[in-house]
Amino acid sequence: MAEFAKGLEGVIAAESRICKIDGEQGRLYYMGYSITDLVEHCTFEEVTYLLLYGELPTREQLAVFSAKMRNARELKQPVINMIKDFPKKAHPMELLQSVISYLSSYVEHKIHHGPHCNCRDTLHQLAEMATVVATYQRVQEGKEYLPPRKDLSHGANFLYMLRGEEPDPVEGEIMDKALILHAEHSFNASTFTARVVASTMSTCYCSISAAVGALFGSLHGGANEKVMDMVDEIGTPQAARDWVNKALDEKKKVMGMGHRVYRAKDPRAIVIEGYLEELSEMKNDRNACEILKEVESAFRERMEEKGKPIYPNVDFFSGAVYRMLGIPTRLFTPVFAIARAPGWLSHILEQRVDNRIYRPKAAYVGSDHRPLVPIEER
Amino acid sequence: MAEFAKGLEGVIAAESRICKIDGEQGRLYYMGYSITDLVEHCTFEEVTYLLLYGELPTREQLAVFSAKMRNARELKQPVINMIKDFPKKAHPMELLQSVISYLSSYVEHKIHHGPHCNCRDTLHQLAEMATVVATYQRVQEGKEYLPPRKDLSHGANFLYMLRGEEPDPVEGEIMDKALILHAEHSFNASTFTARVVASTMSTCYCSISAAVGALFGSLHGGANEKVMDMVDEIGTPQAARDWVNKALDEKKKVMGMGHRVYRAKDPRAIVIEGYLEELSEMKNDRNACEILKEVESAFRERMEEKGKPIYPNVDFFSGAVYRMLGIPTRLFTPVFAIARAPGWLSHILEQRVDNRIYRPKAAYVGSDHRPLVPIEER
Repeated sequence: MAEFAKGLEGVIAAESRICKIDGEQGRLYYMGYSITDLVEHCTFEEVTYLLLYGELPTREQLAVFSAKMRNARELKQPVINMIKDFPKKAHPMELLQSVISYLSSYVEHKIHHGPHCNCRDTLHQLAEMATVVATYQRVQEGKEYLPPRKDLSHGANFLYMLRGEEPDPVEGEIMDKALILHAEHSFNASTFTARVVASTMSTCYCSISAAVGALFGSLHGGANEKVMDMVDEIGTPQAARDWVNKALDEKKKVMGMGHRVYRAKDPRAIVIEGYLEELSEMKNDRNACEILKEVESAFRERMEEKGKPIYPNVDFFSGAVYRMLGIPTRLFTPVFAIARAPGWLSHILEQRVDNRIYRPKAAYVGSDHRPLVPIEER
Repeated sequence: MAEFAKGLEGVIAAESRICKIDGEQGRLYYMGYSITDLVEHCTFEEVTYLLLYGELPTREQLAVFSAKMRNARELKQPVINMIKDFPKKAHPMELLQSVISYLSSYVEHKIHHGPHCNCRDTLHQLAEMATVVATYQRVQEGKEYLPPRKDLSHGANFLYMLRGEEPDPVEGEIMDKALILHAEHSFNASTFTARVVASTMSTCYCSISAAVGALFGSLHGGANEKVMDMVDEIGTPQAARDWVNKALDEKKKVMGMGHRVYRAKDPRAIVIEGYLEELSEMKNDRNACEILKEVESAFRERMEEKGKPIYPNVDFFSGAVYRMLGIPTRLFTPVFAIARAPGWLSHILEQRVDNRIYRPKAAYVGSDHRPLVPIEER
């Protein structure tokens, strides 16, 4: 039998300059800049520029880029129709995947002009995602398409479209920063999908559409939804400790705890916990926040008994933040896609610079040659 | 520097029981049955059954399966609208990718019921492809949607929808057999994409949509289009020999020659060359056929001088067959997708049986930590 690594675990698939994860120290860098610095100093559009160009923009560069990205927010009528016709019970990720490849048709792709072609100019593949998701939700609620606003940040405009009114500036900023936290995280199934599709010289729209399909899978996106299911099940902070002890006694999984690559606390968890605190104060509703803190503390005590510290990851807090911002649970994974789109595009561009088509081998373990009996004699 | 195989070349990504390629002998097997036996004895629906269930069907099993697949051919009105609204100059692969994930929304996915869930029952992800492609072409020609017919084979019905009239039975059969030839070919970028997306437990529709995105890339699909460009450039059989010699002297690539895995003649090329002969006689037009034969012979002579035999692959003849069947060049890659869909679904089902999410590593070669200068100071 041939030896191989299932799921390509531990196998290097490519070199990359985009994302560095220091799991031991609990650090995350985009293009060399720490995530903590990025959320402190930058907007989502600025980070998008960084991911697409490899450098932070000057004020002039950002003004041009920002205008381009904001101009790309509006939906065309056929896309609005796709959203309106979309079956009510179906998942918005299927819609998002579908729309992004449909949008590919509106753009003249100049892939033969070089690896970056015009992917950084059209920006519909990034900008329209938020509009599609917000419009999907509006249609679910029986509302009409609300055109995006160009005077708001990517995060604030998303909340505006969702609610039909401008959010408080603090909420808009937290939404924008939450997107930064999820913009990139090296190779994972969706980013790898984007690179594999891009390696055929398909368009960046078609590659991102494919990545959305991967993120839709329950083993990939969706962890923060499950955390909120847990919060709802626990109900009150007082019930949290017993719930955790019971869950651990029954060897059930506590959602949002631990991370494949972080041995220390996920740096994004620290930032987003701060946003949850801020929103909880602002909205005078500390219930979810307190439940999560109790779960974390009860969980840590049990783990310390065993001598193996496990910390909360970003998903542990992000769902509660989204809910405080008025985002329905069904949109959590689509919001992840909105945030991750610049990361995907960054990997697509990098893949094309020194490309080879992905074509691994299969180890054949099937039948030897079988004689074919025609159907009349079967 | 970390060592790694670019494009995962030579790296085993999974075990598989679906497809065996014997490149030395020029043999290809689906589930143990040789491609030569399959095209001789089976229909495309029968081979689809084989790929999805691992065994050839009995007459009763095929009757049930066939009825299910034919019932899944019709388009819903929102999909017809998507096709009508699709920008005229855009590529039908973008549309096909978009429609397949859109269709995911009409199906109740039972992935938690087990790896095969209900993927083999709904069959819209396979059956509607032909209808979408034919309808795309009809709309391009200013015609209306023509509902599919249930009394025709998959291949014959495709030609019927395209032309608006029933094809000659020989044409219908050749179309159906040509689809069999392309139904499966082990791992390649699109099939691997389907498996990566499926490994997240995304739906089979979303996984196949992603695979369409990969097949769209110019390094993957599209070789038979380029062969026909060559045929058109050559023009007459008399001009073929000089054209080949000139091309080889100038070190240009002759399209449709050689194959990464076949050292002998691609067994599919032998079969499809026979179809080309048959159609050329039937239509009393031997021009393309003679040009290709001259190119093959001139090319072989030059290669024999160098002592390295290189044979034509399936793409060398398939474009000429499609053209004789009245299929426009723009539809060649979409026809490939129609044919390959059962292979993709077969791999998706196999992936789920013993799944691990695909998550290879990146070798980080980017900047060390860079201090962030706020935008005001840049």
